[in-house]
Amino acid sequence: MAKAFLDKNGVPYESIDVGADQEAAQKMVELSGQRGVPVITVDDEVIVGFDSQRLNELFGKTGATDIFDVLIVGAGPAGLTAGVYCARKMLNTIIISENIGGLALESWAIENYMGYRMITGEDLMKKFEEQVRTLNIRLELDRVESVAREEEVFAVTAASGTTIRARALILTQGNHHRKLGVANEEQFLGRGLSICSTCDGPLYKGKRVAVVGGGNAAFQTAIEMSKIATSVSLIVRSTVKADPVYVRKLEEMKNITLHKNTQISSLHGNKFLSGITIRNDSGKEQVMDLDGVFLEIGWLPNSGMVDGLVALNEKKEIIVDCDGRTNVPGIFAAGDVTNVRSKQIIIAAGDGAKAALEVYEYLMKE
Amino acid sequence: MAKAFLDKNGVPYESIDVGADQEAAQKMVELSGQRGVPVITVDDEVIVGFDSQRLNELFGKTGATDIFDVLIVGAGPAGLTAGVYCARKMLNTIIISENIGGLALESWAIENYMGYRMITGEDLMKKFEEQVRTLNIRLELDRVESVAREEEVFAVTAASGTTIRARALILTQGNHHRKLGVANEEQFLGRGLSICSTCDGPLYKGKRVAVVGGGNAAFQTAIEMSKIATSVSLIVRSTVKADPVYVRKLEEMKNITLHKNTQISSLHGNKFLSGITIRNDSGKEQVMDLDGVFLEIGWLPNSGMVDGLVALNEKKEIIVDCDGRTNVPGIFAAGDVTNVRSKQIIIAAGDGAKAALEVYEYLMKE
Repeated sequence: MAKAFLDKNGVPYESIDVGADQEAAQKMVELSGQRGVPVITVDDEVIVGFDSQRLNELFGKTGATDIFDVLIVGAGPAGLTAGVYCARKMLNTIIISENIGGLALESWAIENYMGYRMITGEDLMKKFEEQVRTLNIRLELDRVESVAREEEVFAVTAASGTTIRARALILTQGNHHRKLGVANEEQFLGRGLSICSTCDGPLYKGKRVAVVGGGNAAFQTAIEMSKIATSVSLIVRSTVKADPVYVRKLEEMKNITLHKNTQISSLHGNKFLSGITIRNDSGKEQVMDLDGVFLEIGWLPNSGMVDGLVALNEKKEIIVDCDGRTNVPGIFAAGDVTNVRSKQIIIAAGDGAKAALEVYEYLMKE
Repeated sequence: MAKAFLDKNGVPYESIDVGADQEAAQKMVELSGQRGVPVITVDDEVIVGFDSQRLNELFGKTGATDIFDVLIVGAGPAGLTAGVYCARKMLNTIIISENIGGLALESWAIENYMGYRMITGEDLMKKFEEQVRTLNIRLELDRVESVAREEEVFAVTAASGTTIRARALILTQGNHHRKLGVANEEQFLGRGLSICSTCDGPLYKGKRVAVVGGGNAAFQTAIEMSKIATSVSLIVRSTVKADPVYVRKLEEMKNITLHKNTQISSLHGNKFLSGITIRNDSGKEQVMDLDGVFLEIGWLPNSGMVDGLVALNEKKEIIVDCDGRTNVPGIFAAGDVTNVRSKQIIIAAGDGAKAALEVYEYLMKE
């Protein structure tokens, strides 16, 4: 990668194979104080490893007027994977994101990412980030405010005021869950309050849980959890909006209690959630001891910045085909911001790879 | 998982929390000779861990007349991931495959599976398999010969003669690459002979390579490799079939030599490939020293068994939408057998997860 970087930026260099040259190997260890390759010397400076940031500072050609091959919005599982695939194809790549890891950071016990029997979201995202850091990718922590088309390129303006141009875009800015709007909500997230029954459901075997929501997702989760947990309280803010098929299934389950016209008014517990208070429309309150609450009150895709530029579905998700193409040539998307129904880390990663390889093909044809 | 298995099969049991009961913990260590949970005692037998195979033998209800919730054809990255997702949703799941790992086993240095900076295909597939083995999934090593629809279920007949029925199918039986048809081809695969430039391309920095094929894929690979390798020989059996855009791009590359009406007649080398002999239509032979050969002579999806049952594209790939649904309700597909253009482990895994979650939703609605 170091050689490829230098070649690409037209920097002449001498390459020494320390595997074959014992004397040079000795000298490298003395110079760098360690044994790993590559070691690059520039004038009096010794750079250990493929430090793409430092090499870019010294030799990079990324001025403000430059046009990147591809700009990736978001650095969750989809964006980071897309970045790795783009950089391996030697595309001049920039990622702009508010954080590194996205919503995956909120998962504290991932059992369904293939390759790891159990890993925290934070650890997994660190591994993703490390893979990105070994490649020549510019990663900017910034919030994208607007995306516009300018003839042959796309112009992305961030909160910091900078505008960056690229020949192709990969949109992976994810979604955010609707909030209950009660005190301590953030504190209990991942500590009894869950936003993903597919991820956390099996952890509640033999425990008491509540599910919040009145749509298909809430009913499905309640039915699913009724087979795992001892009891399920389904808390519906107003009236039931789920399909009749789910309502009938729910009625067959003996351990589900339905609370209509009811809201959670407070969350209880110390480190972990241990109970909730619910209040119905007539103001009557009830305290419930339980071990987990699953929120199924909806997700809001972070697609506002591209509304009007690419086609969105009725949920405001970006519509993609099975290869990650949007309706606009040059714009691709992956992960939770798209209309792909299941929102999972491995799905976002796979679709991020698809989008990157499609970008490569798109740019080759241009 | 053990408790869930026993519950599902109606087996009464007593659960002892050895975290809370010191005396019971001591007894468990004595009985099992180790400290891991769960430990299950059945009469005089002691089962360590969630040994789904033994538990199935003792308590399973999987007779020949049983109907599975879902049958997965294939156990590559897509099939194994689908299996994990199905089992976590408590679906009664069976996987039928000729091998475990699929084509991923042929990759000897994977650098683009997120979560691992570098891993062999064999090691990665072992990790996938381990995740499957911790869950309640039946895994049969057998070759699927035919798939038929029988009113409400699908009947899958294997080479061994057994027919297995399931309410839903996930097709992940992959594809196989067309062969050159020369001696030692199998021996050099992964040792200089590559079937994936996206995977192996970066390993040939500064080396001499050949690309075999006359279509878009071959031309793309030659152009890509010309930026990485010092020289590229593009070997086209008959005439060029690639789009003009690629032909023009190729002509711009100074380090690509085009050999039309030419075939590889032999491969040379000891452990690793070190050269080839090519022969043109007039019988003239030429020996070339080189480090790598990329085959881009096409892929053949393993879809014969479902031809006529589900819609295939012109390449005989199974057509899926962005959620892994085929045109037949109850049949889903993922991985290299589908029309998804990029064939990668992380993509197959992600799409396997999609298919599994769609099966779950489909069965819930039934």
